[in-house]
Amino acid sequence: MPEIILSINAGSSSVKASVFASPTSQASKTPTLLAEAEISGLTAPPSTLKYTRGDHHAKEETRDVTTQDAAFKYILDHLTSDSGLPEIAKKEDIKFTCHRVVHGGDFPHSQVIDEDTYHKIAELSDLAPLHNAPALAIIKTVSNLLPYSTNIAYFDTSFHHTLPPHISTYPIDQTIARQNKLRKYGFHGISYKFLVHTISNHLNKPKSDLNIIALHLGSGASACCIRSGASYDTSMGLTPLAGLPGATRSGSIDPSLMFHFTHQAGNPSHESSSEMHITQAEEILNKKSGWKSLTGTTDFGKISEVDREEDKLAFDIFVDRILNYVPSYFAKLDGKVDALVFAGGIGERGVKLRKAVVEGVRCLGFGIDEEKNSNPGKETVVDITREGAKYKTLICRTDEQLQMARRVLEERERLEEDRRRKGK
Amino acid sequence: MPEIILSINAGSSSVKASVFASPTSQASKTPTLLAEAEISGLTAPPSTLKYTRGDHHAKEETRDVTTQDAAFKYILDHLTSDSGLPEIAKKEDIKFTCHRVVHGGDFPHSQVIDEDTYHKIAELSDLAPLHNAPALAIIKTVSNLLPYSTNIAYFDTSFHHTLPPHISTYPIDQTIARQNKLRKYGFHGISYKFLVHTISNHLNKPKSDLNIIALHLGSGASACCIRSGASYDTSMGLTPLAGLPGATRSGSIDPSLMFHFTHQAGNPSHESSSEMHITQAEEILNKKSGWKSLTGTTDFGKISEVDREEDKLAFDIFVDRILNYVPSYFAKLDGKVDALVFAGGIGERGVKLRKAVVEGVRCLGFGIDEEKNSNPGKETVVDITREGAKYKTLICRTDEQLQMARRVLEERERLEEDRRRKGK
Repeated sequence: MPEIILSINAGSSSVKASVFASPTSQASKTPTLLAEAEISGLTAPPSTLKYTRGDHHAKEETRDVTTQDAAFKYILDHLTSDSGLPEIAKKEDIKFTCHRVVHGGDFPHSQVIDEDTYHKIAELSDLAPLHNAPALAIIKTVSNLLPYSTNIAYFDTSFHHTLPPHISTYPIDQTIARQNKLRKYGFHGISYKFLVHTISNHLNKPKSDLNIIALHLGSGASACCIRSGASYDTSMGLTPLAGLPGATRSGSIDPSLMFHFTHQAGNPSHESSSEMHITQAEEILNKKSGWKSLTGTTDFGKISEVDREEDKLAFDIFVDRILNYVPSYFAKLDGKVDALVFAGGIGERGVKLRKAVVEGVRCLGFGIDEEKNSNPGKETVVDITREGAKYKTLICRTDEQLQMARRVLEERERLEEDRRRKGK
Repeated sequence: MPEIILSINAGSSSVKASVFASPTSQASKTPTLLAEAEISGLTAPPSTLKYTRGDHHAKEETRDVTTQDAAFKYILDHLTSDSGLPEIAKKEDIKFTCHRVVHGGDFPHSQVIDEDTYHKIAELSDLAPLHNAPALAIIKTVSNLLPYSTNIAYFDTSFHHTLPPHISTYPIDQTIARQNKLRKYGFHGISYKFLVHTISNHLNKPKSDLNIIALHLGSGASACCIRSGASYDTSMGLTPLAGLPGATRSGSIDPSLMFHFTHQAGNPSHESSSEMHITQAEEILNKKSGWKSLTGTTDFGKISEVDREEDKLAFDIFVDRILNYVPSYFAKLDGKVDALVFAGGIGERGVKLRKAVVEGVRCLGFGIDEEKNSNPGKETVVDITREGAKYKTLICRTDEQLQMARRVLEERERLEEDRRRKGK
């Protein structure tokens, strides 16, 4: 009997859940997608559910749903009551529940969640409260609603535990740095792991030989220098704020800027609570900056199309900041680069953005095929390299939910043992 | 009769003053160095005066001297009472006094200082109080002590007024950005201007055709992408804090880091006064970080020699951060690069550092000649390119005081007119 894996990806205004079945053949490690549900617009009601099961597509308003917690419950009800999905007739049918957790501190790999791990995750969430809160809310609910399911946390940081010390260390007081766990962690690691797996297959090259410059570009955006299949450098830092700008995120700025932006920089923001300490500076830089603050919209697709001066500025800023990373990662790989890879919403759909970035590194030996770039089709990996270019440029449709489900199958033994040890 | 130009460069713990004479031939634009005085150790008494006039060298303790102001007065007395320097027999012999001012906001070029300009400079110093204070103290003293001298401010920011908007704009609330003048300014501009002038002569190539990747590396360090002789991008930002780390400066870090370092980040530091607003965060990041916080010393020469783990870490961090800029600037110049240029105390003396940086960009076509790198001699420009390398690597001994004096001669007409207009 195939086992059911539920992969949950909760963001600040949406919750996605994908239902996978384990393969019936022992040899295969590839889970099968059965259904996908997403509730979006939590912070801009009315929220909406989009549901896909094979050819069946549904969309409905989910008026009362305004929290991650409520969204998850709604999705769970929807799944168990969908007669077209007999694999989940009741909640007990879900064997594994995977959660994408943004900040995992020093955890080098996924964790089966029990009381103890939950508290550890909650504790280190102090480093990125804005980012961990959505997942934490759902993890708690799942523990209560699905007591027979194994709850697993996958961290965006784990992939980057291979960062060498001279890259992860900030040149600041080291006693406080150690005490307060202040270092570069890096994020989007579940996506980068998916890219490594997928590009390795595509190029038919073992992961351990794979050197790629990866760009995960979405409303949160980062770059990663992947050497021998492992993270060697990445643009995000202690939190997802550092590095590239995002839809509402400034990215790297002068570290003293906020003290000249407002005299209240260090004061608690109105989003703070007794469990969640967020300064005004952090709220402004994470939620009120980025290309929204330049153009009024978070939609980078629109920004790329429109020719108002501020859209052009926002577009050019994003390209420029990406070009602060790609050539440096090229040099850190000593020019031994298997591919420049575009992923994430903007990376996968941003025709004009990809063109501008690749043009910006043409002197290194990259080139884009305009026709392929404009019509990349629907494959998971698409090669958009111009004929004669020295280095490959690829688009890879990343899938964090699939990556988590796949890892469940790969790490099954460790997870089972972990679960037994924890007495579940 | 040659006219006397006094060039002053005041740092946080030292004051340098160089005495130049204008050339007697109308055709020459090159001032002649007559004498140099430097008082260092202002923050670590006893301070010391080093004085050089031709072959005459002197060194003396200057026990009571602990402020920039006192240091300048001491130097002025020393100059006027040196019988070997008849060109300055009395204070009135000084025709021009040049001041290196770190933050010049939007000033695109030097300014003759009167009451009005002084207040403008003082006002914009709010953006970089730690950096402008030393020069401001001396400017005031010079106005009083040398009323017949034309007081001129040269700004580290002016060279970067050519930064394009998509590079100088931070993706933050634009109303506040405009109001509070929050953008990338860039620094070390007097030094970069010296480099452009000098390398242009050395390569016999007009400034307007010159593309260089310049590194000014000292206890404050920055990188600059110079395209067609003008600044196109640079590593420092709103203040000198952003970009590369320095002796006591963190360089770029996650902009939210300080709020996890101390809950007092936004509170005034003990160095604050009613005129000078400095937060604890700014003091920590500017004065208590950098390689001093990793190794205990500000002396990068020592760090490069010693093999303790923390020295190696600090060295590797500096190299890594430099390598975050050089390849990106290479791509921003589309590979059309006349030279990679090392300048500043560490850039000029750091044999091991230069080797590591050039090795790090060998895949781009740079290469270093180990023999020339180890024994570069004393010329202003030294070519240390390895035979067969595609691109040049140079050392350039930068001289901000000479650059200011040179500019006085070049801009003489504008300065005279400015002075007349101001009724001096």
